Amino acid sequence: MFKSVHVFRVKPGQELLGEISRFCGERGITSGVVVGIIGSVRRARLNFLIDLPGKYEGVDYDGPLEIVCAQGSVALKGDDTIVHVHIHLSDQELCRGGHLAEATIFSTAEVVIGELDTQLRREADSYTGLNELMD
Amino acid sequence: MFKSVHVFRVKPGQELLGEISRFCGERGITSGVVVGIIGSVRRARLNFLIDLPGKYEGVDYDGPLEIVCAQGSVALKGDDTIVHVHIHLSDQELCRGGHLAEATIFSTAEVVIGELDTQLRREADSYTGLNELMD
Amino acid sequence: MFKSVHVFRVKPGQELLGEISRFCGERGITSGVVVGIIGSVRRARLNFLIDLPGKYEGVDYDGPLEIVCAQGSVALKGDDTIVHVHIHLSDQELCRGGHLAEATIFSTAEVVIGELDTQLRREADSYTGLNELMD
Repeated sequence: MFKSVHVFRVKPGQELLGEISRFCGERGITSGVVVGIIGSVRRARLNFLIDLPGKYEGVDYDGPLEIVCAQGSVALKGDDTIVHVHIHLSDQELCRGGHLAEATIFSTAEVVIGELDTQLRREADSYTGLNELMD
Repeated sequence: MFKSVHVFRVKPGQELLGEISRFCGERGITSGVVVGIIGSVRRARLNFLIDLPGKYEGVDYDGPLEIVCAQGSVALKGDDTIVHVHIHLSDQELCRGGHLAEATIFSTAEVVIGELDTQLRREADSYTGLNELMD
Repeated sequence: MFKSVHVFRVKPGQELLGEISRFCGERGITSGVVVGIIGSVRRARLNFLIDLPGKYEGVDYDGPLEIVCAQGSVALKGDDTIVHVHIHLSDQELCRGGHLAEATIFSTAEVVIGELDTQLRREADSYTGLNELMD
């Protein structure tokens, strides 16, 4: 279950993924679910997986773009905490979603993390070439 | 944590944001996370933030459009309960997401709200010109 | 509330909706919220509701496409467990979301299900022509 649900704001000019990692690091959160993120970004880079093992393309987007939603997880690979987030960005004309590489906040990001009472772990997967959730 | 998770349906012809507010009002929910919404809309208006402080454009969409997902929060600003939702709408040709201003339900909306055991609060932010989550 | 939060991986080549149903069946989960799914698909079929009662169009998509997010529920209709999921797929050029009919996993799908302590139920609705959540 979610032993705790953390709701916090990331502010204008801050980098979203780094701030989530920092929040988790300061509170000792190593296992959780990114339940949601809404807000807006000034710019962002998304990765799109195009082939296996592990070949992706990064695309840069200039905002302002709405953060429509985001989902993901916080897990350990060995002793390292990995925050894995997919995010959906949109304005009146463009609409894209993918793996969040980095994003600079425009007005705000309201982040919700459900901290788990069990430990999520990742390990390298030779078939996908990525760090995948362990059973 | 989520002290309660509320799952309810909004019905054809009803206005989505108003029904969520009414649901929360009747049950005394003043702090929570909009975990998700799926369904379909007959029409909707989304707002897109285009400049700071607080300048946005509203765009009207005619459905039927799928509600692919939605995320957000329920929080107090002073004594007022504010429901803040970003929503993703799509059909076979159009795909957009933004700040939910209003939406009329087509077939259904299945709404999930996680009620928090802590109080979320908003206050006016002079830089963004919006009501932002407080630390 | 969520009496348990299940996080599990669906693997390359597996069919997403069937694997979620199988996971729920094996663990006796008949009531829950699909909190999120991220990953990528090799191909997928989405349904779009175009008219009432219950007329939809299915569209097939070839990947690889990112699973940006997904939301939905697990509920009983009579004795049958129904998994209802809306999903958002995107690459650098295409972005669509709709009712998940089926999807074959490319690299991974990381599925989060919050198991409820109350029983969600569906029943046929003559107006929408669909199985809708009961009050």
